[in-house]
Amino acid sequence: MPIKRTPGSAKGRSRIVEHSGLVYTVAVAREKSPSMRAQTEDALARLDENLAEAGSHKTRILSATVYIADMKRKAEMNEAWLAWVDPAHAPQRACLGVELEGADLVEIVVVAANSA
Amino acid sequence: MPIKRTPGSAKGRSRIVEHSGLVYTVAVAREKSPSMRAQTEDALARLDENLAEAGSHKTRILSATVYIADMKRKAEMNEAWLAWVDPAHAPQRACLGVELEGADLVEIVVVAANSA
Amino acid sequence: MPIKRTPGSAKGRSRIVEHSGLVYTVAVAREKSPSMRAQTEDALARLDENLAEAGSHKTRILSATVYIADMKRKAEMNEAWLAWVDPAHAPQRACLGVELEGADLVEIVVVAANSA
Repeated sequence: MPIKRTPGSAKGRSRIVEHSGLVYTVAVAREKSPSMRAQTEDALARLDENLAEAGSHKTRILSATVYIADMKRKAEMNEAWLAWVDPAHAPQRACLGVELEGADLVEIVVVAANSA
Repeated sequence: MPIKRTPGSAKGRSRIVEHSGLVYTVAVAREKSPSMRAQTEDALARLDENLAEAGSHKTRILSATVYIADMKRKAEMNEAWLAWVDPAHAPQRACLGVELEGADLVEIVVVAANSA
Repeated sequence: MPIKRTPGSAKGRSRIVEHSGLVYTVAVAREKSPSMRAQTEDALARLDENLAEAGSHKTRILSATVYIADMKRKAEMNEAWLAWVDPAHAPQRACLGVELEGADLVEIVVVAANSA
């Protein structure tokens, strides 16, 4: 079963990995806005791009892990999430407060099915 | 390959997602007891329910991620875990201390195989 | 679809789980060095052992989650990672700062494809 890897800007990791009908990808915001909502919208837009590149779509996400740098701002993240997610095709999701790198406020990891 | 999604009480996410023989689900305690052990027992009971709904079982879990709000109380979580898990069918597990929402002390995410 | 489980030293969890062409495994450092780089090298060496036991290899990792106890020392972790990873076969990776147990500085969870 072949593995397809799409590099990102960082060395030593892939932005997208595809294997056996599943897509593994991760996104952070391009613009490091001080707003949790803006960074979440930005990260979700990147996620859309990654999924499209892999022949998948937000309606095909199975599992999402949303890491945020401040749990007190979860509601802001969730506003952006609810404006984005298709309610009829929502993934299993967990949201955890962790330390992220630099000015990142949110990082989203997903496993999705491709559209084949 | 179809995706089956079972909603939970929260908007914008599914309590259970099933795809290609795998089950993705997450549980927190219903009752926000101040006891880590009680919340873990409660979360594990919900996990049992979710797995049963998806035609799976705790003996079919492949991978578990246990997020706890206080690493100093990991031993308490682990007592509940050891009383629950089938030692002959234990999953790969990681336990991480993170910020959780509100009064949650523990959140458990699993990937399981269905029983087909 | 059978599930193969390989126990580790800890009760109630498996060091390696294999199912349907995928390998789920986790590693921490054996030696609890105060150096993030040394612990990462140690954990990666254990990961290599686990993957070999399951008929897989670091070039077959799909997704990696690297938990570190101090985000300020991510660069040290990453030096060890870059010295280890095959750049042509890099996984999707996320690195999160969390609380780990005791003297652990790093814990690495992966999903890999076997080599069949």
